[in-house]
Amino acid sequence: ADTASDVEKQLFLINSVSMCPVFQDVHVMIFIGFGFLMTFLKRYGFSSVGINLLLAAFGLQWGLLLQNIWHMHDGKIRVSIEKMINADFSTATVLISFGAVLGKTSPVQLLIMTLLEITIFCINEHLVVEILNVSDVGASMTIHAFGAYFGLAVARVLYRPGLRNGHENEGSVYHSDLFAMIGTVYLWMFWPSFNSAIAEPGDPQLRAVINTYFSLAACALAAYATSSLVEKKGKLDMVHIQNATLAGGVAVGTCADMDIQPFGAMAIGITAGVISTVGFKFLTPILASKLGIQDTCGVHNLHGMPGILGGLAGILAAALGKKDGVSPGYQACGLASSLGFALVGGLITGLIMKIPFWGQPPDQNCFDDSIFWEVRQNNEYVNAIL
Amino acid sequence: ADTASDVEKQLFLINSVSMCPVFQDVHVMIFIGFGFLMTFLKRYGFSSVGINLLLAAFGLQWGLLLQNIWHMHDGKIRVSIEKMINADFSTATVLISFGAVLGKTSPVQLLIMTLLEITIFCINEHLVVEILNVSDVGASMTIHAFGAYFGLAVARVLYRPGLRNGHENEGSVYHSDLFAMIGTVYLWMFWPSFNSAIAEPGDPQLRAVINTYFSLAACALAAYATSSLVEKKGKLDMVHIQNATLAGGVAVGTCADMDIQPFGAMAIGITAGVISTVGFKFLTPILASKLGIQDTCGVHNLHGMPGILGGLAGILAAALGKKDGVSPGYQACGLASSLGFALVGGLITGLIMKIPFWGQPPDQNCFDDSIFWEVRQNNEYVNAIL
Amino acid sequence: ADTASDVEKQLFLINSVSMCPVFQDVHVMIFIGFGFLMTFLKRYGFSSVGINLLLAAFGLQWGLLLQNIWHMHDGKIRVSIEKMINADFSTATVLISFGAVLGKTSPVQLLIMTLLEITIFCINEHLVVEILNVSDVGASMTIHAFGAYFGLAVARVLYRPGLRNGHENEGSVYHSDLFAMIGTVYLWMFWPSFNSAIAEPGDPQLRAVINTYFSLAACALAAYATSSLVEKKGKLDMVHIQNATLAGGVAVGTCADMDIQPFGAMAIGITAGVISTVGFKFLTPILASKLGIQDTCGVHNLHGMPGILGGLAGILAAALGKKDGVSPGYQACGLASSLGFALVGGLITGLIMKIPFWGQPPDQNCFDDSIFWEVRQNNEYVNAIL
Repeated sequence: ADTASDVEKQLFLINSVSMCPVFQDVHVMIFIGFGFLMTFLKRYGFSSVGINLLLAAFGLQWGLLLQNIWHMHDGKIRVSIEKMINADFSTATVLISFGAVLGKTSPVQLLIMTLLEITIFCINEHLVVEILNVSDVGASMTIHAFGAYFGLAVARVLYRPGLRNGHENEGSVYHSDLFAMIGTVYLWMFWPSFNSAIAEPGDPQLRAVINTYFSLAACALAAYATSSLVEKKGKLDMVHIQNATLAGGVAVGTCADMDIQPFGAMAIGITAGVISTVGFKFLTPILASKLGIQDTCGVHNLHGMPGILGGLAGILAAALGKKDGVSPGYQACGLASSLGFALVGGLITGLIMKIPFWGQPPDQNCFDDSIFWEVRQNNEYVNAIL
Repeated sequence: ADTASDVEKQLFLINSVSMCPVFQDVHVMIFIGFGFLMTFLKRYGFSSVGINLLLAAFGLQWGLLLQNIWHMHDGKIRVSIEKMINADFSTATVLISFGAVLGKTSPVQLLIMTLLEITIFCINEHLVVEILNVSDVGASMTIHAFGAYFGLAVARVLYRPGLRNGHENEGSVYHSDLFAMIGTVYLWMFWPSFNSAIAEPGDPQLRAVINTYFSLAACALAAYATSSLVEKKGKLDMVHIQNATLAGGVAVGTCADMDIQPFGAMAIGITAGVISTVGFKFLTPILASKLGIQDTCGVHNLHGMPGILGGLAGILAAALGKKDGVSPGYQACGLASSLGFALVGGLITGLIMKIPFWGQPPDQNCFDDSIFWEVRQNNEYVNAIL
Repeated sequence: ADTASDVEKQLFLINSVSMCPVFQDVHVMIFIGFGFLMTFLKRYGFSSVGINLLLAAFGLQWGLLLQNIWHMHDGKIRVSIEKMINADFSTATVLISFGAVLGKTSPVQLLIMTLLEITIFCINEHLVVEILNVSDVGASMTIHAFGAYFGLAVARVLYRPGLRNGHENEGSVYHSDLFAMIGTVYLWMFWPSFNSAIAEPGDPQLRAVINTYFSLAACALAAYATSSLVEKKGKLDMVHIQNATLAGGVAVGTCADMDIQPFGAMAIGITAGVISTVGFKFLTPILASKLGIQDTCGVHNLHGMPGILGGLAGILAAALGKKDGVSPGYQACGLASSLGFALVGGLITGLIMKIPFWGQPPDQNCFDDSIFWEVRQNNEYVNAIL
């Protein structure tokens, strides 16, 4: 009996910290991954990584509160590593939407967006996952598609005709593209942890790791191949590599813990990589010019379409019986609900953010850190290197 | 019986590597976190990350030796992951002090400082933790306050009147500030591992993770808000964001494993974020002009004051009975001892470092890698980008 | 009985994910470590980190297939975390060889190299580890020496007389050297995971972690000291620090899980650090001028000589009985086999890569991203900072 209780105690101790590495991986994706991915803009790196930290630090507290206020014990929320992972997840939606409006919003506007978006996310997620019992372990629908279309709806409301012909700061320089690659590579490496973090322990969790790994590997190759095909002289474009290589992680999210086999995961990854790259090349300019949606980071290509693809793949996998107890009809409802909440929520949030009170930067100061940060004069910089 | 021994064997195998992830997190903080945090200077990045690696690689061997030479078995030290974590901790004191004298010392001076500071750290830590039985799980007092005031004492002795009016290289450029943010974000993310690494497994360890997480989240918001309040036109200052967002990790260290509840942790974090930012804005210039303490990285604001705050919070928490067996009186002794050893040890170490033999750079070569590193001529750099 | 099966189930769940942290560490070394280590070239950062990602994403699929196609169950490969680690390992050989030909090859050439090199690696590894039963836990011989000499053989075949006097882009700028340090520090920190990843769980694994840790710490000091000794005025050279600090991880690989004690590990590390630094300073220029081997990253110094040193140390340790069941003769065969396969395989692969069809860049476009990537014009960059 003594030995038995000893073993149980040891198991308890091991279990209490066994989720920490997964939590840290997700944490790295949120703060380093998203933060540095957005540093590609030549004069907007401070805001990308700095405001990313601000929004995530705020959002995880708000998300933790909202997700658990309904399940209190003696008036207290019991915090656990798993809940901290879920809080990180809720901030991911905001950071995705941040990408759509990057460079064109003030910190105050973004804090308001954080407050509203996480609230709406929690409602939709509760509906989809708890009530409709939809399977979305890697959150293709509830995080990625939701975050992307929420952000695009906000971007539509905040449309700036003055930026129709672009902005001189809306582009990268050599080293800013390298900083962005730090974000890309971390997201790429740790995505298996993201998609498996809340999977059922054991085989389903392991399957989520492995499916995501295969989807990403196949997606990366597809993104390189497609980038080379659509660019002049077969060159590669950094924008595609920084983003489309990750679309496989988004798209395999819903199916990650299902029995889709490596072949299924890779098919999803390849499709996502192609769609995403083609989207950056051809669709983003059309969205901007025809629909008035100026999507700075191209979240439609990285999170939007691949998120929908993930939802569709989940419907198909459910129809093929790849996971017990999952029905294609409910999966479809989950996708529709996520898109509906995102678009309506984003429009309302955008209207609130448009109130001329939150310090939105004028057109000429867009994509420029110096409006919100103390930045040393540029000529000092040149002096420094001369 | 067979099954039982099988289980025990498996538990042993799992236990033997279960601390590795925590060790790696601490390792990342030491080498990436501290190393890149200090790359903010425009011409001192090689030294920041390179000398950081040198001092830490040297310090962890010295620390491991000193901490264990008293506990040998058959003339041998038994190395374990836990001891490697403690060795990393001992180097942290040196890297904190390094921040105070960054740019104004030679590698040889710094190696001497490493040798002496880790020795004094081990004496103080043994006294405080082993003899006085003081609780300081995240080492607010024994590492952060100690390292900061040790470094400030050294900086006082090495005071340079010639740098009274600043130095043209004592500042950042755009991309050097982004490199520094790599350090900041890693420190911010992994601080829960730092504060919980040597906590008692089980609930206390988990509590240390969660308290630190809350303290940091609250601290980050406080730092952003305060930075915006104290700067002109409500702008943010990169120096504050890079440093003050981390003060919550320092300040909650002593109490991290105590039953202070998220509210207590957040109160500590907010206080630390405010104090730290205000310190950077108003106190650092005064320290330099009135007291002759030129604190390059502002370690007084990130580690000094928040470390003392952590010690005081520990005294209060002990008085409120937040941890069994901890007495406010002994906690106060631990803080006093750490400050005393730091100041006296730092003064003596500074005097030894001042001996004109260790290659201390002249004023005009301060904050410039090219005195200790082969650096390609600057005009070559401009040629490269033209 | 219920409790027993509960415990077993829990142990199974814990075991199924317990290798994930080690896998992630190795993954970080492959994608961040190797990727950023090679960004030191001033105009070749996109290719370094981007082509590194391409080759690794392709290579891990190819490696996983090749290593497991012989062990199928019902026509299927059973994927596990351990196999994913081995797949990462097989890509490491390619990324090492990539360093030797960095800047002088097209992506298509490199994909061909990946295909062939991993195939040859699998044959040699099967022969050495499975058939000859050679002990090479950290793969000093089968990965590092193999990858280095394979790459050097390819570089010999692809010799470019036009680059005899160097190339204006074959050098670093200030910030490119800092990006490279990200790679260096990650490799340095996580090497203990690399060398212990496939060690036997329990004591041997822990020993591999600790031996590697000591070897690296000692190696770093040796590299700094030697760099300072061989450079003018005692200055440090970034090339040495970026590379030679890691040679201890390479060299201790074969012996990592053997009972060599910290003293043995440190002796290996110091030797490796000295050899590697001296190699960069004196041997690399001779290889280029006398033997026609233009080794861009100096892989001969980081992986080649330290890999051989590791093999020799393994022979010695086997002779001294530091691991049961390991014979010095077979160890020597393992080293010879790895070198033989590398040189012959590399020569053949180089000849195939030389076929004038794979888009090999002309001399004047070497070391320049703009031949394979859309790069904004340089003057735009200067405009951006002016």
